[in-house]
Amino acid sequence: MSNLKGACIIGQSGGPTAVINSTALGAILQALASRDITDVYCCANGIVGILNEKLYDMSVEDVYELELLKYTPSSAFGSCRYKLADFSQNNDDYEKILNVFKKYDVRYFFYIGGNDSMDTCKKISEFLEHSNYECRVIGIPKTIDNDLVGTDHCPGYGSAAKYLITSCMEVYHDTNVYDSGSITVLEIMGRNAGWLTASTAVARDCGYGPDLIYLPEKVFDMEKALCEIEKVYKTRGKCLVAASEGLMDKDGNYISKYLDKHPVITDSFGHTQLGGLACTLAHVIKNRLAVKKVRGIEFSLLQRCASHCASLTDINESLMAGTEAVNAAISGVNGKMAGFERVNDNGAYSCKIIFNDLSIAANKEKKIPLEWINDEGNGLKKPFLDYIYPLIQGEPQIAIENGVPRYARLKKKLVK
Amino acid sequence: MSNLKGACIIGQSGGPTAVINSTALGAILQALASRDITDVYCCANGIVGILNEKLYDMSVEDVYELELLKYTPSSAFGSCRYKLADFSQNNDDYEKILNVFKKYDVRYFFYIGGNDSMDTCKKISEFLEHSNYECRVIGIPKTIDNDLVGTDHCPGYGSAAKYLITSCMEVYHDTNVYDSGSITVLEIMGRNAGWLTASTAVARDCGYGPDLIYLPEKVFDMEKALCEIEKVYKTRGKCLVAASEGLMDKDGNYISKYLDKHPVITDSFGHTQLGGLACTLAHVIKNRLAVKKVRGIEFSLLQRCASHCASLTDINESLMAGTEAVNAAISGVNGKMAGFERVNDNGAYSCKIIFNDLSIAANKEKKIPLEWINDEGNGLKKPFLDYIYPLIQGEPQIAIENGVPRYARLKKKLVK
Repeated sequence: MSNLKGACIIGQSGGPTAVINSTALGAILQALASRDITDVYCCANGIVGILNEKLYDMSVEDVYELELLKYTPSSAFGSCRYKLADFSQNNDDYEKILNVFKKYDVRYFFYIGGNDSMDTCKKISEFLEHSNYECRVIGIPKTIDNDLVGTDHCPGYGSAAKYLITSCMEVYHDTNVYDSGSITVLEIMGRNAGWLTASTAVARDCGYGPDLIYLPEKVFDMEKALCEIEKVYKTRGKCLVAASEGLMDKDGNYISKYLDKHPVITDSFGHTQLGGLACTLAHVIKNRLAVKKVRGIEFSLLQRCASHCASLTDINESLMAGTEAVNAAISGVNGKMAGFERVNDNGAYSCKIIFNDLSIAANKEKKIPLEWINDEGNGLKKPFLDYIYPLIQGEPQIAIENGVPRYARLKKKLVK
Repeated sequence: MSNLKGACIIGQSGGPTAVINSTALGAILQALASRDITDVYCCANGIVGILNEKLYDMSVEDVYELELLKYTPSSAFGSCRYKLADFSQNNDDYEKILNVFKKYDVRYFFYIGGNDSMDTCKKISEFLEHSNYECRVIGIPKTIDNDLVGTDHCPGYGSAAKYLITSCMEVYHDTNVYDSGSITVLEIMGRNAGWLTASTAVARDCGYGPDLIYLPEKVFDMEKALCEIEKVYKTRGKCLVAASEGLMDKDGNYISKYLDKHPVITDSFGHTQLGGLACTLAHVIKNRLAVKKVRGIEFSLLQRCASHCASLTDINESLMAGTEAVNAAISGVNGKMAGFERVNDNGAYSCKIIFNDLSIAANKEKKIPLEWINDEGNGLKKPFLDYIYPLIQGEPQIAIENGVPRYARLKKKLVK
């Protein structure tokens, strides 16, 4: 493989995570260090920043500030949810991208994102090849949802899980404090895959977790769940439930919309339902089980950006994915997605970077293996715990200034 | 003052905090070390545990486990919201308490709680005196709400504030990531006093905070707020709002019930409103300002028990309050509440323990001085920042086991 000299563009896309900046940092530093890569640009708001020619020059940044990206949540260079058309149907965007690539002599493109972003990456890679423009394109995964195919786990998952587990253990303590009864429902992200909700099984394994865990991999039966919740409540006077936002009944209706179809249990009016799943489930439980103190808690955005409770393993692996993607591209890898392979190193966990075709992840979703879910469909089995424990290990020493986290302050100097 | 020998009871009451166990630890260790205190008991679920004669013997606990109370959230010995009658009207409970005190030769009683608990403490103290039973009673404050009179600040506040500030900074990053517009409303605890909501001014001071902060100390005017939110949104394409759960309009109606009286802005049906303030405000904003992406986030219990993001200053001061309360009681102090006095030590912050009459705090609430709130009523001024910064300093090295916090595992051996 011949050497390819030129500039690189690094972009971030999709929903932010606590460690997507760590991946960007790994790629930026490796690219800055490389002799083949002449200039290192990050595009503002993912692919949109390329279309608008909004590129930040990384050579002017202070390395001290760049290093703080390890502990800076969300996407430092902005994100987007822009969907490219098929270039056979409309290639306007592709031509724009090609022109920008030509103008800046971009020969390396790294795109950090979820399954939609891997699709974007694949389309760009194919178009550039079709246009005979030599450029090496690599996708680097990130998603708290952990639902990408082609990787053992996803950068971002371990940190979101660690935050959820920790918070869950704290809430367990809180809800257990009174001698009076209470039921608490935790709503956790993951519309189709239950990885995040399942993570709370670790809190349970430690003795401070949800009594019941409901995942979108299983049909949610309200009557069965009410029985299970009531049983726990009658036994210990409390019940903590972890539920995925994406729970559906057997007919494919979202449980978060349950009250639209079952108004009889509340009052004679119609409903303008404001809350999501946690609110809905808490409302149904309160009415059906006649329990006075029922509370719904939605983790919302908090679970996605809690860098203060990130997993050091996740931070390091995310960084490694960024650096290895650059190394691979320089050595000739093209049209691939970086992925993690779990290595059992004499019983100890370790992780190496592999490269699969971008098509392996694009627009697909990986769910929890059904055999990892207990027979009752309300908890996880040991193989899941074995899977997740290594991913949540280690606590970063985040930079603190005046009692609060000190995040990266970048110059973001636009090129031209 | 003559020496008083006998047992002590330590109790926890009211809503839990991240550091109420740190105060208990300070009192337990100091009491165990004392020659005057013969036995150290913690009552289960506060005063209810005395009424039910449910006392845990601290002498059998491992000190290593006790030390972990510093990082264990919520009330390790359980809490209650039990209200004692006036003993002039019904002294049944008081007689029960007196009998337990006599039975175990209890001569010291330490009660950790908020303003209701200080009232309980005061009543018990008065009854014991009235009954000529010699016993020294001291209340030790705790509340995330920071609304107790007789103390510069309350144990528990600094930690809840640190968590809220940190989370607020993270959410700010998350909501800023897309190039499309969004409005986010954060609902924070504090029904009548805005100390917790105000804490997010620190996040703003750091450059990643709410654009607008609404406190219950000021009447909430929906039309004015909508104008302010729209103005910010039009300027920067985003708006982050921090709002206290207790916001009221000029007629004293909770804003969280706003939709009950203003259904016209939603649809023709009545409402079974499931969410609280954040949901309501988000709903109104969405409808009135015609912004597509509006999200309400309620911190709920998370803000009350987030020991993983506690303030080391708060942990240490809370512990000190417990130890000093015991020392004071041994030296003869009775019927008092421990409080914090802020000492300006050549410009550096320090804090000492003072003792005021229990009546100073019982059933009262301290609000934010109006002169600390800006003229527009949507932000805080510098004196508030000067007040709060020292309280959120320092990060504890919490014990971690297998990637998650390791909490105290107590034997809780019942006496008899």
